Amino acid sequence: MPEEISIAVAGLGTVGAGALRLLQENAEIITARCGRRVKVAAVSARDRARDRGCDLADMAWYDDPVRMAREADAEVVVELIGGSEGPARATVEAALSAGRHVVTANKALLAHHGQALAEAADAAGRTIAYEAAVAGGIPVIKAIREGLAANRIRRLHGILNGTSNYILTTMRETGRGFDDVLAEAQSLGYAEADPSFDVDGVDAAHKLAILTSLAFGVRIDFDAIHMEGIRHVAPADIAYAEELGFRIKLLATAELRNGGVEQRVHPAMVPATAPIAAVEGVLNAVVTESDFAGPTVLEGRGAGAGPTASAVVADIVDIALGRVGPVFGVRADRLGSVPTLPVDRHVGAFYIRLTVIDRPGVIADVAAALRDESVSLESMIQRGRDPDMPVAVVLTTHETQEAPLRRALGRIAQLEAIAEPPRLIRIESFEEQ
Amino acid sequence: MPEEISIAVAGLGTVGAGALRLLQENAEIITARCGRRVKVAAVSARDRARDRGCDLADMAWYDDPVRMAREADAEVVVELIGGSEGPARATVEAALSAGRHVVTANKALLAHHGQALAEAADAAGRTIAYEAAVAGGIPVIKAIREGLAANRIRRLHGILNGTSNYILTTMRETGRGFDDVLAEAQSLGYAEADPSFDVDGVDAAHKLAILTSLAFGVRIDFDAIHMEGIRHVAPADIAYAEELGFRIKLLATAELRNGGVEQRVHPAMVPATAPIAAVEGVLNAVVTESDFAGPTVLEGRGAGAGPTASAVVADIVDIALGRVGPVFGVRADRLGSVPTLPVDRHVGAFYIRLTVIDRPGVIADVAAALRDESVSLESMIQRGRDPDMPVAVVLTTHETQEAPLRRALGRIAQLEAIAEPPRLIRIESFEEQ
Repeated sequence: MPEEISIAVAGLGTVGAGALRLLQENAEIITARCGRRVKVAAVSARDRARDRGCDLADMAWYDDPVRMAREADAEVVVELIGGSEGPARATVEAALSAGRHVVTANKALLAHHGQALAEAADAAGRTIAYEAAVAGGIPVIKAIREGLAANRIRRLHGILNGTSNYILTTMRETGRGFDDVLAEAQSLGYAEADPSFDVDGVDAAHKLAILTSLAFGVRIDFDAIHMEGIRHVAPADIAYAEELGFRIKLLATAELRNGGVEQRVHPAMVPATAPIAAVEGVLNAVVTESDFAGPTVLEGRGAGAGPTASAVVADIVDIALGRVGPVFGVRADRLGSVPTLPVDRHVGAFYIRLTVIDRPGVIADVAAALRDESVSLESMIQRGRDPDMPVAVVLTTHETQEAPLRRALGRIAQLEAIAEPPRLIRIESFEEQ
Repeated sequence: MPEEISIAVAGLGTVGAGALRLLQENAEIITARCGRRVKVAAVSARDRARDRGCDLADMAWYDDPVRMAREADAEVVVELIGGSEGPARATVEAALSAGRHVVTANKALLAHHGQALAEAADAAGRTIAYEAAVAGGIPVIKAIREGLAANRIRRLHGILNGTSNYILTTMRETGRGFDDVLAEAQSLGYAEADPSFDVDGVDAAHKLAILTSLAFGVRIDFDAIHMEGIRHVAPADIAYAEELGFRIKLLATAELRNGGVEQRVHPAMVPATAPIAAVEGVLNAVVTESDFAGPTVLEGRGAGAGPTASAVVADIVDIALGRVGPVFGVRADRLGSVPTLPVDRHVGAFYIRLTVIDRPGVIADVAAALRDESVSLESMIQRGRDPDMPVAVVLTTHETQEAPLRRALGRIAQLEAIAEPPRLIRIESFEEQ
């Protein structure tokens, strides 16, 4: 084995600079684990002059990452540019064509082009490693792809977006509204100026697409994911959740059911006693339910320079040792194609918040609409009375199919006494530990 | 690559039979992950006639596992006999000598002979995989050895013995005493007829020795572990813990401090809000604190046929793919030898429960003894008064060295008014998530 493994790093933003810093600071540990030194042979970024707090003197500089991926003297190309198209995609494709392994933190790229890239990697006899793409500080890719390799995984769920979790946690702790807390998160640097990737569930869905493929051995299918963000979660919902024994989380869930895969990202009520309910602030967590291993919970930091760099370098160590395998755990041409279960075939319990004009007979009309669709009520709360004024009525249902429930809600929304569109949040239950 | 990977299984108890069942039930998944079929070429156990609920017809039978390890037509020998000496050790040694990889669930063997076996594996160019040896259902070996490979891990702690955790959980939930709950656990099959490996901390210490080596890149050193079990934990301690905002867990902790390694297994008070406090019943959990990844929490089932078989087969999949590396993450001859920090140099807070004859001046004498050793009190509780009768006095200290505290306790134990030996439980604090 040569005394070094040479790598080329494309993208020197927060994560790229963090990875270089980690390679320098923990060089001794990393060399011992790899059995050889990691040499950063080349780097590429947009601005050569910017101070990144790390010494680039010994590294070849490329303005064009694609050229670097083709030409640099490196066994591994580390793609930290980001984005599902453009230079990131071209860099990864060029690296594989040139017979180099790829390490990437790019969930969007894998969510959209994972299948084609995995096929390209298989054809090149190289791997794409992407521990950093999902919940950087937690080795969740490795846990599912390798640790649970022998299991039939029935379901996984996770909190995969730290920004949304931070906002929901802060809303719960302070009673403030979404817009207010989002603005604060933006000023603290926890949320982007354009927060939609985070708060509309896109980022979590990118990550879920990857985990689904790994867990079930199926082709990645981002477009099949049902996606709702947290913009509509109101302080009232959070307060009622608490009262009902739940917490609201932006939950990413993948489930194998009736020979199909259900993938969904949406706000969900989870039992306050479930481990996932205790995952607060910017933390991430992934829970799996497997036939032999049982339930596992993995929790830690999802984002930030340190955790992401940790995952990037772990992947480099694996490649240095030859500790690699198929990109999604199974050869790309053997990944299954399983039908998507649309969310209206989802079966579960639901929380419904209605704003009704407080007058006799309203509840009876609501109950009748639900009964006509065979939806069974589990509880009803109406706090206070205020004749002829709008008041909140909160309902929870027993387990039911989503489609008939939505039909009933459509009818309820038409009732004269309904003052605002009904709010619906799915209630999740989990395997007992 | 050949179309099959052949394995030989030594030991067909609960875990061995579970592994065979898993290989049969999930054969399709496992073949896809391995890229080839796993063929059980040979098995060895004490009693050929016993019904194990799995079909052994196509497998060569060996009465002697060592002979099987030498002679069977197998790339991998799976050792599930157990015990640190005797046939288990001889089987592993024979397998390595014969150039075969080893998969084992044997924590005692690794704790006692890990260094020599890792050297033998390196010399043979083979690996020993042992995910099943620690917290079977949770891929914690993989997480620390590979997922956190780039990190300087400062500390890890875990709940590594499900039996002890079940007993402590039940004691807390029911208020019952240790002996009573142990007897029940034995009748339920959660505890062995001879429970000492579990309740005296030996099993947890075996596992901790392995994790310490992996986390810090040091030679395994079981004998350096300070070990206390849970027999002395009284219902009163559990009740006071609750009142003080703690839970009592049998905690295994390894810490890198002042250039030395502290390894200890003992009952500990952990903050009731820490993730580890919520790990109840037979569950296991491991928490790591790393410089780049931050804190991670891994939780799941530690024991039982299913989780252990899951880990055994995950290791087989890794070997089938060539996804292997050094046994303890670093070549055996490069594992460090770091000084052991004896527990009397431990620094932390403490809980002390005294049984004192209730008369004026006792507390003053106790306080003076602590003051003379510069131990600073954080709280004192004396519930109720009962002149001239024994009453409980509970103290907690600020952070202090253990040696002077023990000297003070020695003096306190001599006081005339002290009716029973003082009880001491360490209080742990953790990195904020």
